Amino acid sequence: MEEFVIEAVRAERLRQASGVGMEQFVASLVKPTAAMARAPISKFHVGAVGLGSSGRIFRGVNLEFKGLPLNHSVHAEQFLVANAAQNGEKKLVFIAVSAAPCGHCRQFLQELRAAGDIRILVTDGKDPEPQPLSYFLPHRFGPEDLLHKDFPLLLESRSNGLHPTLTSASATPVKSVFSELQRSALEAANNSYAPYSRCPSGITLATKTGESFSGYYMESAAYNPGLPPLQAAIVAFVCDGGGDYDEIETAILVETKDAAVQQAPTVHLALEKIAPSCTLHVYEVSAGSKF
Amino acid sequence: MEEFVIEAVRAERLRQASGVGMEQFVASLVKPTAAMARAPISKFHVGAVGLGSSGRIFRGVNLEFKGLPLNHSVHAEQFLVANAAQNGEKKLVFIAVSAAPCGHCRQFLQELRAAGDIRILVTDGKDPEPQPLSYFLPHRFGPEDLLHKDFPLLLESRSNGLHPTLTSASATPVKSVFSELQRSALEAANNSYAPYSRCPSGITLATKTGESFSGYYMESAAYNPGLPPLQAAIVAFVCDGGGDYDEIETAILVETKDAAVQQAPTVHLALEKIAPSCTLHVYEVSAGSKF
Ligand SMILES: [Zn+2]
Ligand SMILES: [Zn+2]
Repeated sequence: MEEFVIEAVRAERLRQASGVGMEQFVASLVKPTAAMARAPISKFHVGAVGLGSSGRIFRGVNLEFKGLPLNHSVHAEQFLVANAAQNGEKKLVFIAVSAAPCGHCRQFLQELRAAGDIRILVTDGKDPEPQPLSYFLPHRFGPEDLLHKDFPLLLESRSNGLHPTLTSASATPVKSVFSELQRSALEAANNSYAPYSRCPSGITLATKTGESFSGYYMESAAYNPGLPPLQAAIVAFVCDGGGDYDEIETAILVETKDAAVQQAPTVHLALEKIAPSCTLHVYEVSAGSKF
Repeated sequence: MEEFVIEAVRAERLRQASGVGMEQFVASLVKPTAAMARAPISKFHVGAVGLGSSGRIFRGVNLEFKGLPLNHSVHAEQFLVANAAQNGEKKLVFIAVSAAPCGHCRQFLQELRAAGDIRILVTDGKDPEPQPLSYFLPHRFGPEDLLHKDFPLLLESRSNGLHPTLTSASATPVKSVFSELQRSALEAANNSYAPYSRCPSGITLATKTGESFSGYYMESAAYNPGLPPLQAAIVAFVCDGGGDYDEIETAILVETKDAAVQQAPTVHLALEKIAPSCTLHVYEVSAGSKF
């Protein structure tokens, strides 16, 4: 069972067959999940498995990218949250993870509504009971220190109202084959969670075999622990069974013009290491009415 | 009083004049420290002040860089640790900070020996008593999960044994004016704390008026919360009273050849935003006997 998203009916059927409770079943998936990690630098494989309020199960693994600074890495808990967010899950209630969550992830998880209540089980054997996230990050700094209490958080619906008129640096007419990918990337940017910088962005990746995968930038109140748009799109690629990154032929980045947080040069640099033959197209759009 | 390092004798004299205990005196410096933050994106100014076992006081502020992804930001606690490390402090015993430390910083601080015992006071008024770092990051993941217990940690002496023979991509003979800067950058790389990737690096920045500032790359067991070499050198620049970043004319980066964690392209990209007229010279050296 290698799916990164397990639908609710199937999850319940598998749990019944296993004869254990749902949290115990979710925890039993941690080890096989960790086996799917892509950690060429550390060789340290982490698996995280989460249960959504919809009954769906989401899995996450750590990703590292050789040749790039370590802050390009994606932790298993971030992968899991990005997977849940990009599949429209509204709430995570329980997470099981193979190693103690690092501080960076404890911080990133604060972007979820009522984050402190999420039950977390570390399956390293030190503590057989789940603890609430508030136990792992007491006296926290988080969204409520910076945002209005009604602002939609990471797993909640939003649209950034980015203007659909794309402007490209290139003067040549955009090939029609790109227009669907452009729309996907614009949609991703509109779903982007960037309440702190107000610089949303989204990426669509297309493979040689014509498949495409989108991801959006997700910020943290503490800035550094956010998930960049390329990493979010790579999460979608991996979730969908993507193999070698060099299957990725085209990348479309949509971000706002004159952004205080500009992604394009960094995405370009990262793709050169991750998928050297991939072509990056960047489209700057006008900030929407929401900003 | 704008110094980022206050020598022990002067700290004690100032404390006596203030009529309070040392921890209270350190806490009284948090507010004026925060005023020195450089946070053009968030406008959220954070100050952190630490007491070393030498009796010296170290200050830190948050730095943000417009136009770059937010993971280029330096948090006040990281600045403070880099300041202490680069000034040879062996131990921090107490830290006062203006806002609750984020998870990313709680994780970065794990690289200090006996990190759990460092007393931390958040001066936001919610809790007037300091708490040990172990309170802020229970069930932690840290260096002891990955390194031998005798491995020198972030504030402990080390030399990476990088070979002093520099090889440059440029075939032209290196101007003699650079050789002192090269030696500084090599020394910084030798002091770099990179036990996880084993890819140490260091940077020396030189200004138009002939001053120079060095900093070294510092890693975290959790990868993402590390401090990149450029940011570490900028900490040294700010500590020494550096003004606008465009005073910086030259940057020398020393890193290892064929590094799994390569800094050069990212440093180049970051300098284009931070100090656009600065020229970057990159020297790749052979990994030392320690690696
Ligand atoms: Zn983590
Ligand atoms: Zn922080």
